[in-house]
Amino acid sequence: MAAAAPVWSVDPRTGKRRERVALEATTDAVDTAVRAAHTARGALADRPPRAALLRRAADLLDAAGEEIVAAADAETALGPARLTGELARTTYQLRSFAAIVDEGGFLDVLIDRPDPGLTPPRPDLRRYKIPLGAVAVYAASNFPLAFSVPGGDTASALAAGCPVVVKAHPDHPATSELCAGLLRRAAVETGLPADAVGLVHGFRAGVDLVRHPLIAAAGFTGSVRGGRALYDAAAARPHPIPFHGELGSLNPVVVTEAAAVERAERIGAGLAGSMTLGTGQFCVKPGLVLAPEGAAGDRLLASLASAAAATEAGVLLDHRMRDAFLDGVRDRTRLPGVQAPLAPGDGDGEHTVGAGFLTVAAARLADGGPHDLLLEECFGPVTVVARYADDAEIGAVLARLPGNLTATLQLGDAESAGTDPAGRGARLLAEVTPLAGRVVVNGWPTSVAVAPAQHHGGPYPAATSTSTSVGATAVERWLRPVAYQDTPPALLPPELRDGNPLGLPRRIDGRAEGA
Amino acid sequence: MAAAAPVWSVDPRTGKRRERVALEATTDAVDTAVRAAHTARGALADRPPRAALLRRAADLLDAAGEEIVAAADAETALGPARLTGELARTTYQLRSFAAIVDEGGFLDVLIDRPDPGLTPPRPDLRRYKIPLGAVAVYAASNFPLAFSVPGGDTASALAAGCPVVVKAHPDHPATSELCAGLLRRAAVETGLPADAVGLVHGFRAGVDLVRHPLIAAAGFTGSVRGGRALYDAAAARPHPIPFHGELGSLNPVVVTEAAAVERAERIGAGLAGSMTLGTGQFCVKPGLVLAPEGAAGDRLLASLASAAAATEAGVLLDHRMRDAFLDGVRDRTRLPGVQAPLAPGDGDGEHTVGAGFLTVAAARLADGGPHDLLLEECFGPVTVVARYADDAEIGAVLARLPGNLTATLQLGDAESAGTDPAGRGARLLAEVTPLAGRVVVNGWPTSVAVAPAQHHGGPYPAATSTSTSVGATAVERWLRPVAYQDTPPALLPPELRDGNPLGLPRRIDGRAEGA
Repeated sequence: MAAAAPVWSVDPRTGKRRERVALEATTDAVDTAVRAAHTARGALADRPPRAALLRRAADLLDAAGEEIVAAADAETALGPARLTGELARTTYQLRSFAAIVDEGGFLDVLIDRPDPGLTPPRPDLRRYKIPLGAVAVYAASNFPLAFSVPGGDTASALAAGCPVVVKAHPDHPATSELCAGLLRRAAVETGLPADAVGLVHGFRAGVDLVRHPLIAAAGFTGSVRGGRALYDAAAARPHPIPFHGELGSLNPVVVTEAAAVERAERIGAGLAGSMTLGTGQFCVKPGLVLAPEGAAGDRLLASLASAAAATEAGVLLDHRMRDAFLDGVRDRTRLPGVQAPLAPGDGDGEHTVGAGFLTVAAARLADGGPHDLLLEECFGPVTVVARYADDAEIGAVLARLPGNLTATLQLGDAESAGTDPAGRGARLLAEVTPLAGRVVVNGWPTSVAVAPAQHHGGPYPAATSTSTSVGATAVERWLRPVAYQDTPPALLPPELRDGNPLGLPRRIDGRAEGA
Repeated sequence: MAAAAPVWSVDPRTGKRRERVALEATTDAVDTAVRAAHTARGALADRPPRAALLRRAADLLDAAGEEIVAAADAETALGPARLTGELARTTYQLRSFAAIVDEGGFLDVLIDRPDPGLTPPRPDLRRYKIPLGAVAVYAASNFPLAFSVPGGDTASALAAGCPVVVKAHPDHPATSELCAGLLRRAAVETGLPADAVGLVHGFRAGVDLVRHPLIAAAGFTGSVRGGRALYDAAAARPHPIPFHGELGSLNPVVVTEAAAVERAERIGAGLAGSMTLGTGQFCVKPGLVLAPEGAAGDRLLASLASAAAATEAGVLLDHRMRDAFLDGVRDRTRLPGVQAPLAPGDGDGEHTVGAGFLTVAAARLADGGPHDLLLEECFGPVTVVARYADDAEIGAVLARLPGNLTATLQLGDAESAGTDPAGRGARLLAEVTPLAGRVVVNGWPTSVAVAPAQHHGGPYPAATSTSTSVGATAVERWLRPVAYQDTPPALLPPELRDGNPLGLPRRIDGRAEGA
């Protein structure tokens, strides 16, 4: 048997190896991790220990904040400010899910009293949701904390009662080990098995994980290519499992003529800020902007150019990503009719990249062909501005877009107030809604709030399922309903008993209990 | 181009063709039907017309009851009594979904007020669920009404706002045409396009349908082989779509020693009634019964044998199914150690089949090998009784079962009351819960109530998703969430506006509005 390959932590600021962190998990090691997680299911069956685990994990992560931020910065170059914010987001998210566990509404308890007079007769039926089992979580490159080991999928899965095996992202193995250690310690300190959270490294381990018969579901944030391969593997299993993947998103922005006339400079500067945030490495980076031809649109571009040019060159998460960015920009720039008023650059020529943007006539995007490349996500600080002549050209481009995490509208005052004669605001809102999981008006898509009403997903390839990876309802992806028919009161789970001993929000015969 | 093949209605009582009903849909015809359904989306966007359509459809189906029952009986031989009941179930279901549309809770409206102090800051977020688009529904052989053209998937999809293209089952094309005509008339009479409901015939049309780029989701009830092929096609699309398939279920029953001692005769007779209902052609037919060795179990078998023997020979839905049933019984009977105290027979030797059951030692099922055949569904009036020596043997068999729609426990009085020293009732309930979508205690799984708390689904192959095909929550399978961020009040859909103009159940900042 070949020896397991070492896993190195690499400094993206230099491209040099920092330290040897772990070994890639062999098929046997993956099996061991999955079996351990599977065995931990029973310990997570009750809600109070789950809530305690989530809170203890948040406390331990906060307490180790300096160490975590330093480890993550050394591996990702995202910088202490951003990483401190990301850690705060991560621990807020863990505590939010603890509150969700306490409240218990996600159990979706429905109770029907018997009614023998119906066709067919109705027995006593009591339904709630149960955890699916041990789940696989694939960490994202661009969020070493909030979408990785201690991130949203781990938090929502533990909230649901599902043990987790995380497949670490190769861009931050040391941070992953550090966080997994803290999560496992949190489990032990709350009386749960450490194996409620497991960690494996390596590409092959990721494939083994999604194929393992005891893995009941998977969550993924990453590229279309990697995510689709894992989705296909999940679907090809003898027993297919839910695969909740976030694969890619162009995040279109439509700037109306009125908006450009009223505030071209503010929109240009705002766009520059959003597309360069985190060196353009957000899933919700605006990657395609429909802006009007003419003077107002020109002002917008001038403002975008000066704001983007003032952005410092940044380090991408790894050198492979830097190569892909520069190749992607080059291939797009070579297309007929594409111009680069501010060409994205190669920074210091070795490790960094500079922000920029491309322009093209919207009509070029309406017909397919080689310009379809401009409708694909390009990770990094670049966006494509498509100049349109009229509303019909906006519609023609929107009609060609694949699914997105977000769609953004920049509207004029009258359009926002619904007082413009053309009713353009409402029409555009209706036009972009089928394209996205979240619609932003007069703002920017970057910054994804952790909130009950959040939806971070959307039509394929934004997501491979209809669920969200951010926000309270993310817990739903790890659950399935089960109904108990005519079950004697003494045997019913307490969640389903008469008198509501656990004080849960429940619906009886279709109406809120006690309402 | 080859001419489209004719579709014949066949009398299963004779195996003879009755009439030529339609033509199989060519790829072009499928495309036309899907495009027409896709175009009908807008007309279904508002809820009141959807509710009106569902109610009008129920009225028209009821009014044509005699004709429908006659048509369905001629093609399925299910008999007027059963079909009259099935029609009542079908129209009740349509009206139930109309009430669900009126109530609007399924929109799952969540509103979060802005909070700039959070990390990350929280904008104004308003989320609800929108229809996925035109959907494909695959009719089931065994329910020509309730799980076919006017059945649960059609009703829940229309309730969700999704136009439907139904792929008719070849066992009842004339009934399908009749019902589709009434549904299309109901649409027109409520001011909606007839193409809110389309119908296609033919195997190839079914495959074309699931691959069509404008089909946004699919619902299926049928066999593991057919369902898995369509599931695979849905997953292999450039843009995969949700495929909600109900593929197969063994529906295990565990009879404890105490239950057998207390009421062997009642259990035997009840089992005979459940397994022979509809000539054993229910998805929830109990197909594997764990019964104790010894005297009480022997009494149960004697009672089962006499009740099943008294059942009249029945006609299966088609002759292919009859052949598969007889082959399936023969292959199972040839396994070592399998006995047939009441051998399922070939009825009149040509068109009917007689009910029966097989027995085997439970220990034979615990180890894999050729006896695994006994853990596969066999459609028709047969069940397998596995005799166990102790609780360990029960557990060993349960551990080998695939997913099921239902699991049933027959418990003794003390076990039901939770007063037996072994705590066997609670233990068995916990043991079967991971195996099934519905757990029945001291009853039988046949008869699936249409109710808010119903869950008709379960782990694969019972279902290919975590959703249900029966009950109020079935509407969820055709929806996806979308969130609106900082959207001006004038542009918000009325469902999401301040003041709740539509009077919907909503949650604000995680709490019920007005509570």
